[in-house]
Amino acid sequence: MLKDVKTGNDVTIIEPVNLYGCKLCDDVFVGPFVEIQNNVVIKSKTRIQSHTFICSNTTIESNCFIGHGVMFINDKFKKGKLAKWGEWDTTHIDEGVKIGSNATILPVFICKGTTIGAGAVVTKDILEPGVYAGNPARLQK
Amino acid sequence: MLKDVKTGNDVTIIEPVNLYGCKLCDDVFVGPFVEIQNNVVIKSKTRIQSHTFICSNTTIESNCFIGHGVMFINDKFKKGKLAKWGEWDTTHIDEGVKIGSNATILPVFICKGTTIGAGAVVTKDILEPGVYAGNPARLQK
Amino acid sequence: MLKDVKTGNDVTIIEPVNLYGCKLCDDVFVGPFVEIQNNVVIKSKTRIQSHTFICSNTTIESNCFIGHGVMFINDKFKKGKLAKWGEWDTTHIDEGVKIGSNATILPVFICKGTTIGAGAVVTKDILEPGVYAGNPARLQK
Repeated sequence: MLKDVKTGNDVTIIEPVNLYGCKLCDDVFVGPFVEIQNNVVIKSKTRIQSHTFICSNTTIESNCFIGHGVMFINDKFKKGKLAKWGEWDTTHIDEGVKIGSNATILPVFICKGTTIGAGAVVTKDILEPGVYAGNPARLQK
Repeated sequence: MLKDVKTGNDVTIIEPVNLYGCKLCDDVFVGPFVEIQNNVVIKSKTRIQSHTFICSNTTIESNCFIGHGVMFINDKFKKGKLAKWGEWDTTHIDEGVKIGSNATILPVFICKGTTIGAGAVVTKDILEPGVYAGNPARLQK
Repeated sequence: MLKDVKTGNDVTIIEPVNLYGCKLCDDVFVGPFVEIQNNVVIKSKTRIQSHTFICSNTTIESNCFIGHGVMFINDKFKKGKLAKWGEWDTTHIDEGVKIGSNATILPVFICKGTTIGAGAVVTKDILEPGVYAGNPARLQK
């Protein structure tokens, strides 16, 4: 189902999906079984693969690849409590970032030139380009 | 699809889902792309977010928050074999527990006052309240 | 949706699914919210549980159990780049292997007699039978 979704040119969406209140720019691809919430912007040529969930307050720049079953998060359960309605954190994925399947992305910034390994759990901002993997995700050397 | 699902008042279910033989009490929320099997009880005001799978023999008490893409398990492949039909283990999540997205929950008990971090793999009973994270999940100090 | 899917006898598929260009042999079970891409062969009596994604160039032998939310991968983002179209890696799961829910399977071979724990991230070929768990997955002793 699509509700209040703004789409650019040549956007591909494979149903079934649950998208609402989000913006998909030119040439974006969205696979099946994806949910994207409101206040999300997906920039041009970025691919969102199947089974992925993108929460409110997430911006993904252009030419990114978001794998299958990736879960974005905007509530860190601070002090063991749910965030109040509308007080969720924000996530920003910079241009060309690749995120492997089954990765978990806490509310962070991930800089250009970064690859996140499959199954990684990203708990902090990533400011140094490279390959990050593991739980919690660490720079691989 | 819903088959043999007992629902209380003000239950919200976002299709598509696959729910059968389960009981959803008052004010329960179930997001899209969720499967809930038979012999599951979800108590009042608990939220089950998108992409989550809840297996047979699971009881989730009231006011819990189960994140996106959480997988519950009732077969530990003892001795490398599948459990015989009907001989699955049980899971019990106590009142108000919060489980982060992409967490994996083996057949365990999780006590009141517990928060499970995103991407955690819970392999043992949790009897001491706190925040647990990692693979396997450990108490964070 | 099914497109160009070859099925043997007594195959069970629980909709909604997204299957294309794959072959499902006799007595295969496919749960809901599953995607299987082209150039995939699932041999007889193997079960693919809900929320699982099986990528191109994967062969799963007979009598395997693939849990819920398992993500298969055919692109290791070598040198931080996406594989070129059609140059994806291959995965081969040997007879009777059991893979736990929320596991992540990089393009590897997994030998007969192996059990992969729930939430494990398999990054290398597995040539020695046993139980593997963790991120990255290691033989449990």
